[in-house]
Amino acid sequence: MRVDGRQNNELRRIHIQTNYLKHPEGSVLIEVGDTKVICAASIDDRVPSFMRGEGKGWITAEYAMLPRATEQRTIRESSKGKVSGRTMEIQRLIGRALRAVVDLEALGEKTVWIDCDVIQADGGTRTASITGAFVAMVLAFQKLVENGKLTHIPVKDYLAATSVGIIDEHGVVLDLNYMEDSAANVDMNIIMTGKGHFVEVQGTGEEATFSKEEMAALLEMAEHGIHKLVAIQQEALGEIAEQMNERMKAQ
Amino acid sequence: MRVDGRQNNELRRIHIQTNYLKHPEGSVLIEVGDTKVICAASIDDRVPSFMRGEGKGWITAEYAMLPRATEQRTIRESSKGKVSGRTMEIQRLIGRALRAVVDLEALGEKTVWIDCDVIQADGGTRTASITGAFVAMVLAFQKLVENGKLTHIPVKDYLAATSVGIIDEHGVVLDLNYMEDSAANVDMNIIMTGKGHFVEVQGTGEEATFSKEEMAALLEMAEHGIHKLVAIQQEALGEIAEQMNERMKAQ
Amino acid sequence: MRVDGRQNNELRRIHIQTNYLKHPEGSVLIEVGDTKVICAASIDDRVPSFMRGEGKGWITAEYAMLPRATEQRTIRESSKGKVSGRTMEIQRLIGRALRAVVDLEALGEKTVWIDCDVIQADGGTRTASITGAFVAMVLAFQKLVENGKLTHIPVKDYLAATSVGIIDEHGVVLDLNYMEDSAANVDMNIIMTGKGHFVEVQGTGEEATFSKEEMAALLEMAEHGIHKLVAIQQEALGEIAEQMNERMKAQ
Amino acid sequence: MRVDGRQNNELRRIHIQTNYLKHPEGSVLIEVGDTKVICAASIDDRVPSFMRGEGKGWITAEYAMLPRATEQRTIRESSKGKVSGRTMEIQRLIGRALRAVVDLEALGEKTVWIDCDVIQADGGTRTASITGAFVAMVLAFQKLVENGKLTHIPVKDYLAATSVGIIDEHGVVLDLNYMEDSAANVDMNIIMTGKGHFVEVQGTGEEATFSKEEMAALLEMAEHGIHKLVAIQQEALGEIAEQMNERMKAQ
Amino acid sequence: MRVDGRQNNELRRIHIQTNYLKHPEGSVLIEVGDTKVICAASIDDRVPSFMRGEGKGWITAEYAMLPRATEQRTIRESSKGKVSGRTMEIQRLIGRALRAVVDLEALGEKTVWIDCDVIQADGGTRTASITGAFVAMVLAFQKLVENGKLTHIPVKDYLAATSVGIIDEHGVVLDLNYMEDSAANVDMNIIMTGKGHFVEVQGTGEEATFSKEEMAALLEMAEHGIHKLVAIQQEALGEIAEQMNERMKAQ
Amino acid sequence: MRVDGRQNNELRRIHIQTNYLKHPEGSVLIEVGDTKVICAASIDDRVPSFMRGEGKGWITAEYAMLPRATEQRTIRESSKGKVSGRTMEIQRLIGRALRAVVDLEALGEKTVWIDCDVIQADGGTRTASITGAFVAMVLAFQKLVENGKLTHIPVKDYLAATSVGIIDEHGVVLDLNYMEDSAANVDMNIIMTGKGHFVEVQGTGEEATFSKEEMAALLEMAEHGIHKLVAIQQEALGEIAEQMNERMKAQ
Repeated sequence: MRVDGRQNNELRRIHIQTNYLKHPEGSVLIEVGDTKVICAASIDDRVPSFMRGEGKGWITAEYAMLPRATEQRTIRESSKGKVSGRTMEIQRLIGRALRAVVDLEALGEKTVWIDCDVIQADGGTRTASITGAFVAMVLAFQKLVENGKLTHIPVKDYLAATSVGIIDEHGVVLDLNYMEDSAANVDMNIIMTGKGHFVEVQGTGEEATFSKEEMAALLEMAEHGIHKLVAIQQEALGEIAEQMNERMKAQ
Repeated sequence: MRVDGRQNNELRRIHIQTNYLKHPEGSVLIEVGDTKVICAASIDDRVPSFMRGEGKGWITAEYAMLPRATEQRTIRESSKGKVSGRTMEIQRLIGRALRAVVDLEALGEKTVWIDCDVIQADGGTRTASITGAFVAMVLAFQKLVENGKLTHIPVKDYLAATSVGIIDEHGVVLDLNYMEDSAANVDMNIIMTGKGHFVEVQGTGEEATFSKEEMAALLEMAEHGIHKLVAIQQEALGEIAEQMNERMKAQ
Repeated sequence: MRVDGRQNNELRRIHIQTNYLKHPEGSVLIEVGDTKVICAASIDDRVPSFMRGEGKGWITAEYAMLPRATEQRTIRESSKGKVSGRTMEIQRLIGRALRAVVDLEALGEKTVWIDCDVIQADGGTRTASITGAFVAMVLAFQKLVENGKLTHIPVKDYLAATSVGIIDEHGVVLDLNYMEDSAANVDMNIIMTGKGHFVEVQGTGEEATFSKEEMAALLEMAEHGIHKLVAIQQEALGEIAEQMNERMKAQ
Repeated sequence: MRVDGRQNNELRRIHIQTNYLKHPEGSVLIEVGDTKVICAASIDDRVPSFMRGEGKGWITAEYAMLPRATEQRTIRESSKGKVSGRTMEIQRLIGRALRAVVDLEALGEKTVWIDCDVIQADGGTRTASITGAFVAMVLAFQKLVENGKLTHIPVKDYLAATSVGIIDEHGVVLDLNYMEDSAANVDMNIIMTGKGHFVEVQGTGEEATFSKEEMAALLEMAEHGIHKLVAIQQEALGEIAEQMNERMKAQ
Repeated sequence: MRVDGRQNNELRRIHIQTNYLKHPEGSVLIEVGDTKVICAASIDDRVPSFMRGEGKGWITAEYAMLPRATEQRTIRESSKGKVSGRTMEIQRLIGRALRAVVDLEALGEKTVWIDCDVIQADGGTRTASITGAFVAMVLAFQKLVENGKLTHIPVKDYLAATSVGIIDEHGVVLDLNYMEDSAANVDMNIIMTGKGHFVEVQGTGEEATFSKEEMAALLEMAEHGIHKLVAIQQEALGEIAEQMNERMKAQ
Repeated sequence: MRVDGRQNNELRRIHIQTNYLKHPEGSVLIEVGDTKVICAASIDDRVPSFMRGEGKGWITAEYAMLPRATEQRTIRESSKGKVSGRTMEIQRLIGRALRAVVDLEALGEKTVWIDCDVIQADGGTRTASITGAFVAMVLAFQKLVENGKLTHIPVKDYLAATSVGIIDEHGVVLDLNYMEDSAANVDMNIIMTGKGHFVEVQGTGEEATFSKEEMAALLEMAEHGIHKLVAIQQEALGEIAEQMNERMKAQ
């Protein structure tokens, strides 16, 4: 059994609270075990200058952690005056992943700003951010539909993310917490769609390597987790999800 | 009656949730109406270099807003690469105010890091930060007492803050929300102790001025509000407050 | 008697040399005891983008100290690559205060840039900056009047600033020099108009608190000092002051 | 046939010129088609502070492009005053990959600085950097062996990288040039060891997704390319490779 | 004899490889002994905003060194987040020098971006940069002539640069390498035209001074070197030089 | 006659006010016509880390202009967050020049910080800074002698700087003011010692060139001006100069 009593293929307790904030067009508080992230989606009626006049939308993301989200206090990036390489990697990843499931032509010349702010961190903050950000983005799109600015939610498929890894005493495990993450030889973040297609695969053997067989087992485990995460997203979205599902079937 | 139905001398609904986060030594979520701030207090066993060897502690604060705490998304200060003048003013204010009620000799060579992160903003974020930060700091001190690193909570008095202002149709009002703040001719932030002493008075007539009589009315209104805020802090601290109260009486 | 032989309610020797620099529209060298500040007022025929089209003017200020204005050399903010929190607070304060006494509609879409550069520091540099900047600004307005760009000096009232504080052995004192400032328990900067209205009150008990009675005594002492400062400003402005006075009376 | 006449599973012409620079401990100029990267390995006799006293070495990498390595001139990151997210991702990737095949204990408390400077870019600059950096690093280790600072080259396996992708009219292709990269639906960078183990897999469907079957085909194609790249590395290293091979067999 | 066997008035081996890079309009690799610099000239069809509408062109330069161009690794300026004073001096010098021999009216509203990247450094990198940049710029102009964007190469004269210095045991020497540069009492960089006019003279006695007689000897030695450098430039430019020469004679 | 009525070989009115500031070890206000610079010399009892343990001193300089020293307001470098290339060139020049005439061994492990702040600019600010900084530095050394920290003023020779240039209608002129500087074809800054040796020669033909004969005439004119400047420095230093002169003769 794992350090927190889970089976190898068991996700942590997931909870998604929709419309967590008053001001943003869409927002959630997503909890994945002790990891808590506020995801907000803001709509801007312009696109960046390099995209103007193409009739397409854009999605961009920012990610940050509160200084005491972590066990030791981390220095604010605003105080240091620059954003770390890790932060940049994560925010590029979130934006890229969401763009893969949005019909940017149907969105039209609008920018979706995604803000993922980690309130409490216990491993898997980037995958929780993506899973939560998808829901926040759909809520924002729903508001645009209600305001008559969109005819439908321009989303082609669900999108969720989780981590898988290899730990000596356990083998392949799903959804690693911080302690497991520190112990893992191989760490892989997988982003998949509701239909089971890959959007992004990032596997790293930090000071280690992994075989083709291990690669296959990791991918299979991830697929299992993503399937469950999408079900939780649908539950959180309720009626909105039902409409999306019908639309997706019809395509 | 005011825009949200309050009397001129009425605070908004205040709620302080203690130990809101898992990692920090002390933390709260303070809600003042729709304004929500996470306050975390972290203890560092060193003091800044300019204070080493003096046998005294130090308290320093940082303040930030999530991009969508506000009605319009604000650009992250980490992305801009620098902290705004407004942010600097506020974090200097929070640190200075807390230092006024802490017995820094009794604390010894430790630094208290206060982090105030505004999750949602509706006016009065700096005063909510101070009121919440005081409670978070006391919770952190209590943990040091429990771990045997302090013999008692080294606090000389309670500390809370509120705003008062003058609005044309209402006169002097207490605890302004964002809409009121935008309409006010005079805006004053007052920080006071539980015993009713001033720690900081910052009154500003943005493109306006105010008379000595108005000054007096503003100070009186503030005192009334602070008195109520301290009662709410005591309630949130429960047993810890009782011990503090006894100790303060004994002095 | 105080460290430099003054009475508690006595200002230091003040001298304002008008038109100190060749290039700016208005400039002064103000000396308050050993504190010396060059204040320059520049007129720009545009307003910041957030104000365009409103038909109103804007006033903004910058403040700096020469590295050896102070007893120990301080590092240049240009070398550090960022402006300190203290500097930002002061420049925001100067701009805000001047805007309170200027008729921005009458000024029209122009920006007044105030530059306060401390040549020598001995306490009270921010209040000296404000007192001097008011005169420099009026001189710049006078030049606009002479050039036919304004019909009159668009100033509603005089504006001056001083500090008051509480020192153990003296009680409430006026216009603290650096040594007194370091020793004071309470330090308050007051900005008032010629007619005796408050524009800004900033009182701080650094690691100390102050009572309502002390507050009242501080305000009264400040008013006494401001009264004298405005007289010195009028003398420095000479004929220009006479015209301003008539205009103010007429309103 | 592909745009430059290659088969789907064909690498571009690869050339590795060893000891390209006079000063560094190890250096190469690697050419992968028209992509040209100077890779330099520098040895520092200290490790970063977070690793001191552990008896282990560290490897860190920096990556940059000359402004006219690209078709349109790109602004220097030194002029912009900050390193882009893309650059940070790449330099973190290079360092992490090399650390996976080095015996850091055997290296001892030394830091290897890898500098990859792209002189000319035509797609695949990050994978060319890794393939070249491995050779430069081995050359630097060889110099340490010659100077008696190491008893042997502390490398556990060869390391090379390439890209694979899916292009509509071609299907899965190996080693994409810039024009192919722009046209690809799926882009995957694979870093593998000489023994055929994965070190890093980064697959991205930019505004697209990919199936498990496509994933498998991509991985197989990459393995084929890596095998050839390692042979080219061995040829470039000559005698040094022979010694390394013997040592690896013996383990 | 000098440290590398040269006579006092002897240049190092110079080689200029034209069209070294694929993308820029003009480029060279210039080698001056062991000093190697890639010079690229890019044409932008706009001028900086301060020059718009004047009908004249502009030339600007950037200069950098690879981290291991030097014997000890130097930190990247992009990592430090700012460009050093030395770099700024050199890039201002290169731009200014080239502007002195270009007919900016004939160029028209275009900007020439010069990038000098030092691949390997052994003294004299700024003078090698200027000598190489002149050739790269002419090549770029030639391309504009071929594309019909210019009727002729808008250059008024050749331009080359070298260093001269005074070394105790040798006296006045030409084209100092790094070891000589470190030993020299006086170091002078001279930029001259093909017709023997000065464009820039920068002589410095670092912790030393020099007499008028030494000044004269230095200038004479420099002229001798520049004469040879211009011949090497002409050889590298081949036919293009012949056309330029005819045009210059005709003027 | 020149624009301000001077002869070609005539300096502007020069005035050096010694001990202009209260805090620095040495300071002057130097006026060269309408150019006014405050030069302060501060002594630090340490040297930069790269010089520790060598038993030698160091001299470093910083230079800045007040925003309204110039006809148009210039943006503060602290606001821009970086120092311009021009500023860096000037501060490197000032430090280098002063080091040429100081006996750094006799100074011992101390750093002299020179701060040159231009209060008002009318051309020649860098040369006025050097001429003034030399006097401020000598005053600071004199204070060290008085305090017993030095046995004598460790200066080997006087140091002054001026500009010379070529203007179409006048030919070679001395000490150019701003209007002349803008009109000059050739601009040369010369730093010389009291004994007439060159320390630095920086001649530039901005979009122009100059012949050997012009070079000779410029150098001669500069020598004439420097001679007069040194006499003014000696007068300003009074008795201190007399002691220095005797010591210099004795060597």
